[in-house]
Amino acid sequence: MIIGGDGYCGWPTALHLSNKNYEVAIVDSLVRRLFDHQLGLDSLTPIASIHNRLRRWKSLTDKNIQLHIGDICDFEFLSETFKSFEPDCVVHFGEQRSAPYSMIDRSRAVFTQHNNVIGTLNVLFAIKEYGEDCHLVKLGTMGEYGTPNIDIEEGFITINHNGRTDTLPYPKQASSFYHLSKVHDSNNIAFTCKAWGIRATDLNQGVVYGVRTDETEMNEELCNRFDYDGVFGTALNRFCVQAAVGHPLTVYGKGGQTRAFLDIRDTVQCVELAIANPAQRGEFRVFNQFTEQFSVNELAALVTKVGKKLGLDVDTISVPNPRVEAEEHYYNAKHTKLIELGLKPHLLSDSLLDSLLSSAIKFKDRVDTNQIMPSVSWRKIGVKPKTVPA
Amino acid sequence: MIIGGDGYCGWPTALHLSNKNYEVAIVDSLVRRLFDHQLGLDSLTPIASIHNRLRRWKSLTDKNIQLHIGDICDFEFLSETFKSFEPDCVVHFGEQRSAPYSMIDRSRAVFTQHNNVIGTLNVLFAIKEYGEDCHLVKLGTMGEYGTPNIDIEEGFITINHNGRTDTLPYPKQASSFYHLSKVHDSNNIAFTCKAWGIRATDLNQGVVYGVRTDETEMNEELCNRFDYDGVFGTALNRFCVQAAVGHPLTVYGKGGQTRAFLDIRDTVQCVELAIANPAQRGEFRVFNQFTEQFSVNELAALVTKVGKKLGLDVDTISVPNPRVEAEEHYYNAKHTKLIELGLKPHLLSDSLLDSLLSSAIKFKDRVDTNQIMPSVSWRKIGVKPKTVPA
Repeated sequence: MIIGGDGYCGWPTALHLSNKNYEVAIVDSLVRRLFDHQLGLDSLTPIASIHNRLRRWKSLTDKNIQLHIGDICDFEFLSETFKSFEPDCVVHFGEQRSAPYSMIDRSRAVFTQHNNVIGTLNVLFAIKEYGEDCHLVKLGTMGEYGTPNIDIEEGFITINHNGRTDTLPYPKQASSFYHLSKVHDSNNIAFTCKAWGIRATDLNQGVVYGVRTDETEMNEELCNRFDYDGVFGTALNRFCVQAAVGHPLTVYGKGGQTRAFLDIRDTVQCVELAIANPAQRGEFRVFNQFTEQFSVNELAALVTKVGKKLGLDVDTISVPNPRVEAEEHYYNAKHTKLIELGLKPHLLSDSLLDSLLSSAIKFKDRVDTNQIMPSVSWRKIGVKPKTVPA
Repeated sequence: MIIGGDGYCGWPTALHLSNKNYEVAIVDSLVRRLFDHQLGLDSLTPIASIHNRLRRWKSLTDKNIQLHIGDICDFEFLSETFKSFEPDCVVHFGEQRSAPYSMIDRSRAVFTQHNNVIGTLNVLFAIKEYGEDCHLVKLGTMGEYGTPNIDIEEGFITINHNGRTDTLPYPKQASSFYHLSKVHDSNNIAFTCKAWGIRATDLNQGVVYGVRTDETEMNEELCNRFDYDGVFGTALNRFCVQAAVGHPLTVYGKGGQTRAFLDIRDTVQCVELAIANPAQRGEFRVFNQFTEQFSVNELAALVTKVGKKLGLDVDTISVPNPRVEAEEHYYNAKHTKLIELGLKPHLLSDSLLDSLLSSAIKFKDRVDTNQIMPSVSWRKIGVKPKTVPA
């Protein structure tokens, strides 16, 4: 069961698992598409409706993916999907996943924490009630850790203190209401593993870049979404679109912010590895799901270099940082557990950047340049609902 | 502004601060009284309505305490109370505060996390919008820490790891949906201190015992509530009532569970100290608010000893532990910060236990012995709503 299976990571994961002969059901409220309407945003790539996506997949591969449209915060709906599909594994992407979205106004902050925390609680109760052997694969984020001045471990850290030792949950320092919602989820899930014997894998995922996987490439109706706007766009994807339309790359503040990254082809690979090697009953397992670290300045330099090869004139500007975060800091995060399970990383290379930039150029007439600059401020968020003028 | 000012800790705090000439407003939805109706429970002590409580206080002291009845999850209500009262300090007791309540069924688990997390988010937004210099004094719990095998520090711990050092939030291991909600709150508050410059004190309070403070003693209409039931009763208070009615003291499992405790007279004193010595702008300050540690077996032995002096025949039985928790463990929690601010602890003494037991004996005809045994199981919680038969 792929919750959030219509989204940027969920859709290619659903196709990948179906292609690997897993029996797949997508559970999605489609609210991500509603956010685009409400905020006046759109995917760079044209995306088909979920119904047409699934019909195309069936016609191409003769594989059926079930579709359950509804909100997992509605437990009556969620319990019916559990009872009818009887999942052996739930992959839970079904959360509001943008930090800026969670910082637009009070109402979106509250929505994000309510939606993410209560949705995940409902999933945990559904597993306990209807299939307690079911493995929960939950998407978290590397952003849960923040930027501590010590190495980031995978979920737990052994601490020596006043002559005694214990291995404890790694301290979290999230820096948006979105990132905080994932910390809340991690804490809730860890408790249910201990109290109820739930088996869970918490995937602390880095920033995902790219748009294509083997499966989404098969037909244009299977095309994945690609967000370049200031709310849902992730760093490298945004830079590629900016380069394609001749907009300067927008580095927030000093650009020394270092984060963990991975190719979307590795997202689907990691989820498959987690499913194929499930956690034990009662085990709360945490994997840091990324392949490389980059600073924002390093990404801008890479895009500039590859852009030049394609004949693009790429500038970089520093814009006032809309976030509250350290702009120069230590960052060294461990990520060995998925490698040990067999992950073969697609590292960021000139050829991948070539293809990303080429995608961006292909669709550059679809770019709305009003969406490029950051519009959400961590410090200026207020209680008044923010709407987008026509 | 005392949110939750009608409750077990909030009411004596409101009176104490009013008596010290603070201008006090109580904000409360009175939902705690509804829980009693719904679960068929009642305070051991007869308690007056909030309106009569406040009229009596006014007639005795000529001091006025404002009353705003409503739900802080309703932001429209909360913002009106902020704009009209313009608090310099918000003391936030306004949460569902029982671990067993949060483990009754799915609906109560979800209610607890929604109510506590969203209510606190709303308070943070109200402070940012309507009075950003206002000091938030938030009631957390020592239960946020769980029972690590190392010393528990006050909120933060300095970790040396792979040759580097940082001071990070102390790792949390909460063990009910209620305790988890407080962890979520702490994380949310810490973020807003950093991002918005909120000034906050997180009081990680131990288990509170006792019923009387100087102010509640002034008149029977000011009497505080006293919970002895398996849902809202806390350990020592419950043992005193059990002893008073000749029920064996109910030790859960082995009874080696060690927790931090304090007298309710110290609760009001600690809150006053936090208010009088506010956190700085942007400071997230954590105090461990307790005075002594005891194991459950130690408490049972104390009640047995003092009960004998009063002519009571006190037995102790071990009942199957309804919770999932370590029953023998290391426990050493720091609590120096409130002492440094001037806290003069009321340590648990025979005379206090005498008076607690005497209170229990005085009202023993009000005891419903059906409420004494634990009725909520951490492992058996399910999705079906649980109701109490007549």
